[in-house]
Amino acid sequence: MKVKVGISNRHVHLNYEDYKTLFGDIPLTKRNDLTQPNTYACNETVTLKGAKRELNNVRVLAPCRSYTQVEVSKTDAYYLGVNPPVRNSGDLIGADSITIIGPCGEVTKDVCIIATRHIHVDKNIRKEHNLEGIDKVSVKIGGEKSGIIENVYLKDSEEAYFELHLDTDDGNAFLLNNGDEVEIIL
Amino acid sequence: MKVKVGISNRHVHLNYEDYKTLFGDIPLTKRNDLTQPNTYACNETVTLKGAKRELNNVRVLAPCRSYTQVEVSKTDAYYLGVNPPVRNSGDLIGADSITIIGPCGEVTKDVCIIATRHIHVDKNIRKEHNLEGIDKVSVKIGGEKSGIIENVYLKDSEEAYFELHLDTDDGNAFLLNNGDEVEIIL
Repeated sequence: MKVKVGISNRHVHLNYEDYKTLFGDIPLTKRNDLTQPNTYACNETVTLKGAKRELNNVRVLAPCRSYTQVEVSKTDAYYLGVNPPVRNSGDLIGADSITIIGPCGEVTKDVCIIATRHIHVDKNIRKEHNLEGIDKVSVKIGGEKSGIIENVYLKDSEEAYFELHLDTDDGNAFLLNNGDEVEIIL
Repeated sequence: MKVKVGISNRHVHLNYEDYKTLFGDIPLTKRNDLTQPNTYACNETVTLKGAKRELNNVRVLAPCRSYTQVEVSKTDAYYLGVNPPVRNSGDLIGADSITIIGPCGEVTKDVCIIATRHIHVDKNIRKEHNLEGIDKVSVKIGGEKSGIIENVYLKDSEEAYFELHLDTDDGNAFLLNNGDEVEIIL
């Protein structure tokens, strides 16, 4: 079955406490809606600082979560000088330390991960696409640099937009663009 | 059958005329041998300039060739603001324009490509590994971000070191390091 692709550039989720440390009383403001319901990218950005270098203009996603999390690609990780593990969102066991710098302050925390390849689903999507009881799938990608990616996790939420999320390394390795269609292999 | 991986960072091959324009009478000097026989990375580097940005410290490979060629990843291409096609080395039809800047001068040419995934072979390697008469293969990659890459070309030379060459997008997408072993699928 087909699923559309969304490429995630490096980004940051903040809990409310860290948001206050980084941005003080400045409210987060919407730049654009994301495809997942009730989520958006903010106009606000942070700088990420690793052992070797910094990356500026890293987008903050909203709304705030119960945990702060920094998601980078392996390419970003080499550049920054960090060594994040591959993790599902919210699983920060073994996450690497990184410094997040905002206009009002900074925090240094063990919250840096490379996000697993994942497909957003909800109960209705699972039912409609015969994906009930399945943890992970493979995905076949066409084009000049074609192939198959494995260990693509199904990520459940109350209400999801059915979409495969890849980081920029996977997206660029396979020459993918947002909205491209790829094939789920069970 | 197994093959070792070599990850190619962005780099430049120069013909003798362009080398003279960029470096004048400075001789190219060896920094380190590469795995392919009679090839080496130079101490000399250039700056690449695209429509949007520049990348510094881009390694020149030796010896000089009959054609100048710039090999970048798709990630580099977005950063620079160039749109290179995927090409086998030496096939510069449709290659994108890029400016190469050296200490003595610069050249702007249609020589920028994303290199195809390729495995270096020679007659003996083809014979030994039952690869005679084969143009391209697929390769199975293990690990946390496992999968299969297709359209991996066999690249012949007089004397080769048997090795799969990938760009940094493929290498980082699959969390590969130089010397890792992967599996050729016929």
